[in-house]
Amino acid sequence: MSSWKDPEIAGVRALLASRQPEPGAPAPSIAQRRAAMDAFGEMGSLPPGCLHEPVTAAGVKGERVVPTGAIEGRRMLYLHGGGYVAGSPRSHRPMVARLADKARASAIVADYRMGPEHPCPAAIEDAAAVYRWMLEGGAEPERIVIAGDSAGGGLTLATALALKDQGLPQPAGLLMISPWVDLTQSHATYRTKAGDDPMITEEGLTASAAAYLGGLDGRDLRASPVFGDLADLAPMLIQVGSEEALLGDSLMLAERAGHARVAVRLEVWPEMIHVWHAFGGQLGAARRAIAVAGAWMDERLGG
Amino acid sequence: MSSWKDPEIAGVRALLASRQPEPGAPAPSIAQRRAAMDAFGEMGSLPPGCLHEPVTAAGVKGERVVPTGAIEGRRMLYLHGGGYVAGSPRSHRPMVARLADKARASAIVADYRMGPEHPCPAAIEDAAAVYRWMLEGGAEPERIVIAGDSAGGGLTLATALALKDQGLPQPAGLLMISPWVDLTQSHATYRTKAGDDPMITEEGLTASAAAYLGGLDGRDLRASPVFGDLADLAPMLIQVGSEEALLGDSLMLAERAGHARVAVRLEVWPEMIHVWHAFGGQLGAARRAIAVAGAWMDERLGG
Repeated sequence: MSSWKDPEIAGVRALLASRQPEPGAPAPSIAQRRAAMDAFGEMGSLPPGCLHEPVTAAGVKGERVVPTGAIEGRRMLYLHGGGYVAGSPRSHRPMVARLADKARASAIVADYRMGPEHPCPAAIEDAAAVYRWMLEGGAEPERIVIAGDSAGGGLTLATALALKDQGLPQPAGLLMISPWVDLTQSHATYRTKAGDDPMITEEGLTASAAAYLGGLDGRDLRASPVFGDLADLAPMLIQVGSEEALLGDSLMLAERAGHARVAVRLEVWPEMIHVWHAFGGQLGAARRAIAVAGAWMDERLGG
Repeated sequence: MSSWKDPEIAGVRALLASRQPEPGAPAPSIAQRRAAMDAFGEMGSLPPGCLHEPVTAAGVKGERVVPTGAIEGRRMLYLHGGGYVAGSPRSHRPMVARLADKARASAIVADYRMGPEHPCPAAIEDAAAVYRWMLEGGAEPERIVIAGDSAGGGLTLATALALKDQGLPQPAGLLMISPWVDLTQSHATYRTKAGDDPMITEEGLTASAAAYLGGLDGRDLRASPVFGDLADLAPMLIQVGSEEALLGDSLMLAERAGHARVAVRLEVWPEMIHVWHAFGGQLGAARRAIAVAGAWMDERLGG
C-alpha cells in the first residue's frame, strides 16, 4: 500500500526507509542493536520536570522515572522491548516518561537480564523479583500496573503468569503495546502483513528468539505465554498497529484471554506500525495512543 | 462453571434459569418471542426526563428517544436485536435511552422489517434508508453513530457496508454490542461456550437465521457481513461477554476489521452474557458497559 490517510505515518516510514542498511549488508550485531536503541532513546525529550534516577531493586538494576504529576503510591513497572536482546531504561526513557506522566504514576524500568548472555527465564525472574520487591517495600498491588512493549509486552504477560504461579497478587492492570507473545510465530499476519511492516522481519525475530531461548523450545509457555493458562490474570489493555506482522499476536492474546474470562480491551490502530508510541515527536497517533493508555492506567490505579 | 466472581451475574443467571420453559416444551413461536421481548422492555425504566415519540423516517417506522442532556445535532441510529425476527423500539427502549443519555445524543430506533415476513436484505434497506433520511434532514455524518446489539449489531455492520457500496459517508462510529455477524456460525466458541451461555442456543440461532435468510445462503455478505470487505468502515467499538457463544463473532470481527485498517476497539467483559447491558437494573457491569460505550460515542460525536 503506497498511500496513507495519515500523512505523518508516511513521514515516519520515509525516515525509517532512509535508515535501512544497504541490500546485502550484514545484519547489525547485538552490540550495534543495543547502541542504536539507546541512541534513539537519548534523542527523545521528556515531559517538563520529569526526573529519572538509577535504582537497584532486589539486585536488578533499573531506573526510576518520576513525572511531576505522579500521585504518591501509584506505580508502573515497565518492561522495555528490544527482542529480549536489546533495549534498556535509556532506550525507552522518553516513551516511559510520557506514559507515566499520563498515568500520573512513577515508573520503575527494569534493566532485566537479556539473551544471549542470559536466556529465558532470566528476564522473567528479574521482572517478578522487582514486582516482589515493590510489594515488600509497601506498594499495593491494586496500585501497580505492569506495562511493556514488544518483547517487553510478552515479558509482561509471562511475568503475570509467573506471579500467579508464585501465589502473588496480580497488579491492577497489564498494558501491552505491540506485544510479542508467540515465539513460534504461528499467526497468519506474520505472512499477510510482512510486506507492510517496516519494523519487523522474520529473520530478525528468528534471530532474537534463538538468542533468548538458548536451547529452550519456542513453545515453552515462559517464552510464548499466550499459550499459557490466562485465567485470573489482571485486566489487560492491548494496543497494536494494523500494519504489524505481530498483529496476530495481539489478536491471539485477546482471544485466549477473553475466552479465559480476563477483562480484555484490544485496540487496533489503523495504519500504525510496531510500537508507534516511540515516535511521539513525529506522530499525533503516538501521542493519542499514549494518552489513551495513560488514561486507562490512571483509571485502573485508583486514587 | 458454577461460581462467579461477580455475585450479580449469578443472580441474573438464576433469574434466567427460573424462566426457562419445561424440558420438552415446544419452542416459543415468533409471535410469543416478540411479545416477550416487548414486555421485557416495558418493565425497564428510563433516565429521568427522557422522552420518546413515534417517528416515520423514509417510510420506516421507528421511535425517537431524547434524553435530557442530548446535545443538538448529535444522533444515534439504533438497530435493535432479536435474531432479525423479534425486538422493537419498545423492547429496547430502556437500554437505548441509557446509551443515548451517556452519549448525550438523541436516538432514532428503527422498527426495521424482519423475518420471516421480510427476509434479508429488507432490514438493511430500511436501516440504510433511515440513515440517508437523517443526512437529507441535515444531520452531519460525523455527528451520527450507528449502534446495535446482537442481530442489530450484525445489521449495524451490514448497513455500514451498504453505505459504503452506495457511496454514502460513513458515520462517526459503529457501536456493536454482542454482535451476530456470522450466520454460518463458524467460530469455535459456538461449541466451547455453548455450556456457559444461558441466552443463545444453536437451535435458536439456526431457526432465526432460517427465518431471516429466506432462501438466501448464510454466507451471503449481507447476512454475514464479517466476511465482507471491511476497509474504510467507521471506527468500531465492540463489546462482548466472555460467556457468549457469540464471543467468536466479535473476535472474528475485530480481527478482520483490524487487518483491513479499521480503527477497532474490542472489549471482552469477563463473566458477562449476551447483551448483558439489558440488565441495567440488576448488574453494575451493565451500567458500567453502557457508561463506557456512551463515553466512546460521546467522544466520537464531537462537540
